[in-house]
Amino acid sequence: MKELLNQILQKIKPSEEERNLVERVKGEVESIAKEIIATFDYDVEPYFVGSLAKDTYLAGDHDIDLFLAFPPDIPLEELREKGLELAKTIGENLERHEVAYAEHPYVRAFYKGFKVDLVPCYNVRDWREVRTAVDRSILHTKWVLKHLNGKNDEVRLLKRFFKGINVYGSEIYVKGFSGYLTELLIIKYSSFLKVLENHDFMFRQKIIDLEGWLKKEPEVAMKTVKREVDTDVPLIVIDPVDPRRNVASALSWERFGIFYFKAKQFLENPSREFFFPEQKQMGDYKRTLREKGTKLVTLLFEKPDLIDDLLLPQLEKSAKGFMKALELRGFRVFEAHWGYKNKAFIMLEVDRTEKPRVEIKPGPEFFTERGLRFYLKNRKVWIRGKRLYSEKVVEDSIVDVIRELLEKNQVSLGKQVKEHIMQADILINFVPPELSDEAYLFLSREKWNLKG
Amino acid sequence: MKELLNQILQKIKPSEEERNLVERVKGEVESIAKEIIATFDYDVEPYFVGSLAKDTYLAGDHDIDLFLAFPPDIPLEELREKGLELAKTIGENLERHEVAYAEHPYVRAFYKGFKVDLVPCYNVRDWREVRTAVDRSILHTKWVLKHLNGKNDEVRLLKRFFKGINVYGSEIYVKGFSGYLTELLIIKYSSFLKVLENHDFMFRQKIIDLEGWLKKEPEVAMKTVKREVDTDVPLIVIDPVDPRRNVASALSWERFGIFYFKAKQFLENPSREFFFPEQKQMGDYKRTLREKGTKLVTLLFEKPDLIDDLLLPQLEKSAKGFMKALELRGFRVFEAHWGYKNKAFIMLEVDRTEKPRVEIKPGPEFFTERGLRFYLKNRKVWIRGKRLYSEKVVEDSIVDVIRELLEKNQVSLGKQVKEHIMQADILINFVPPELSDEAYLFLSREKWNLKG
Repeated sequence: MKELLNQILQKIKPSEEERNLVERVKGEVESIAKEIIATFDYDVEPYFVGSLAKDTYLAGDHDIDLFLAFPPDIPLEELREKGLELAKTIGENLERHEVAYAEHPYVRAFYKGFKVDLVPCYNVRDWREVRTAVDRSILHTKWVLKHLNGKNDEVRLLKRFFKGINVYGSEIYVKGFSGYLTELLIIKYSSFLKVLENHDFMFRQKIIDLEGWLKKEPEVAMKTVKREVDTDVPLIVIDPVDPRRNVASALSWERFGIFYFKAKQFLENPSREFFFPEQKQMGDYKRTLREKGTKLVTLLFEKPDLIDDLLLPQLEKSAKGFMKALELRGFRVFEAHWGYKNKAFIMLEVDRTEKPRVEIKPGPEFFTERGLRFYLKNRKVWIRGKRLYSEKVVEDSIVDVIRELLEKNQVSLGKQVKEHIMQADILINFVPPELSDEAYLFLSREKWNLKG
Repeated sequence: MKELLNQILQKIKPSEEERNLVERVKGEVESIAKEIIATFDYDVEPYFVGSLAKDTYLAGDHDIDLFLAFPPDIPLEELREKGLELAKTIGENLERHEVAYAEHPYVRAFYKGFKVDLVPCYNVRDWREVRTAVDRSILHTKWVLKHLNGKNDEVRLLKRFFKGINVYGSEIYVKGFSGYLTELLIIKYSSFLKVLENHDFMFRQKIIDLEGWLKKEPEVAMKTVKREVDTDVPLIVIDPVDPRRNVASALSWERFGIFYFKAKQFLENPSREFFFPEQKQMGDYKRTLREKGTKLVTLLFEKPDLIDDLLLPQLEKSAKGFMKALELRGFRVFEAHWGYKNKAFIMLEVDRTEKPRVEIKPGPEFFTERGLRFYLKNRKVWIRGKRLYSEKVVEDSIVDVIRELLEKNQVSLGKQVKEHIMQADILINFVPPELSDEAYLFLSREKWNLKG
């Protein structure tokens, strides 16, 4: 085990050379930023945050996060405007830059092969002063630097493990473990292996409170715990720098569950695979379809020009909308899958692509006013128990049904992908070559198979 | 209207000739019975009951019911034994006879082309003395004779109307209007047309109490009403000879509903058709199948040697058992139909005859003991929310599924038809020529169409 972890570390720990490069570039960016800040009307302090600042980054994975901390007494509007102005000016002095948007606008610049995010925020001393979502980052960095205690490589191992088993990242379309959460778990359990060994215990114990907020701020911290218990999360990690926040609030049951089984598997049978999974064995999706006796319906459409954070949740929403609408129309949808390559796609595995042209139409009780109208309105009517029944003709091909659902606006779609989906090609039991692996992984369930 | 009803009456009213024949044969049977009773140890009185006794029979429909009324003070066992002995002796003096069984054994004999049922019962004066189900018949006959007041032909019209629209008969497999109920409705509303005109009113009013039991025996009668309301029947007709009994208790919502609409239709548009429906227009069931896009599954098996009263309810139970079991296995069953010609059959209209070879297998929550077992037991496992999922292979052809259901005893079947059904042929989208009309009426729903 020790040897295995050493081998992994050799691959993921930045080399002396990389380290030096990172430090040099950070230094240069800092100088440039400071020069410009000096000419600026506000008392701004630049802070490096994120994994580079905490020295928990993986080899080759070294994006720079430079936060521009404004005095807490200026209004939010002013921070937004002046902050963006400052970030832009710094960006102009690097290689190239663009404005990006999260809760507030920031600047994404590039410099000597490094991505440099320039993010305006407030210079807060503690959680009571926090005003925007990014204000905590500086506090996080400080707290981790103070408590990590030389366990940086343990963080790297756990981070790589999370990446290998596909549960890393707090993005809305991942809902996994964030970098900060990874660091806190190492600080809590002291090593990579200890975190894995505690996979069941941490879930049963439920609450991790490194800063002792439940004693220091019982009211605020209990409110946080209660709220998170009510929303039913797998894990509550009270933020050491802010008792109002659960660091693991974005962690889904699904991702935690994957970690749960993979930790067990790794401890029983450690291997390199967990950190660096091999490409899955691919198969022929058409053969899988034949074996399962199911059908594949693929909606293929132009990829909307959106970042993953926006696009993927909207594709998910649309896919689930189709699942629901098709179930109501008498098709069984086993699973859905969505994403994009050149084009965006939604795949649906269904029980069939054709169905009977008739549906039973249950009517009211026969002796009512509505019963009489039902009787008069329908060509064939019969009684079962007290109720009238008739039949209606329905669309019988899933392609027609999908077209009708779209035309009649009867499927819940993501707002910004709707127009694209309206124009989708609908493919039955066939996908373009670029999607054939996706189709195979989806239909064979190897995409999600815990034992895969 | 008047003319139409006269035309119908001419067809259904027994001729002078038939009447004379009936009276002559009744007289002969009575003489034979009395002669034998005279040599018998018990003080038995013979009574004619039923539509012949009440002169409400339809032309050509003249079965003789002769009840042999024993003194009420002999024990039930003795009545059974001696009653059957007496009935047999009378039967031996007619042409041929056989023993039949209802609640008690009786004798069915034949004489000069007439069917003669010889039924032992108690000679009761009123409802308080009633001990067996047949004891009331003599009271019924007396009561109707006393109150019918010359409306015999009105009864005949209503009876023929009920037969024409297929709601006549209180047998368990019909659940329609009995002869006695028909007579009571005429006594209540005074004419055939008045009964039809009151189709909605009688339903709203709910209770018909010709003998005023609710005043004379409020406690007993209210108990009857309450019981019948609780079992949710469409109509409560308190038996004029027994306040404990609802004459319409066997009437189903379905049959009442058919009468409800047909009465309305007849009043709007009277025609001979209602009394003597023409053979329905037949069509090609295979074409109906193609048009509807549904499939027909027919189980064809030896007709068990049972009377309709037993056979049909058991076929119904079995058909419903198949509906339920197949729905659980992922087939949609639109309707079922059962009956017999040379062979007995159960027809099922289903959405398809093949289905995917896989089913989703939902498992327990991942963090439980059972979750771990589920994880270990299945080859592919994934997580959705908190739960584990897997897939299982299932039978994919409805024929295989039915065979499996039968083998594993997973379908609820009528006791006395079970063995026969186990041996059934299973036909897909095809029936033998003798059943093709049945298949058409079933699939087209013309079998039950209120507008057909």
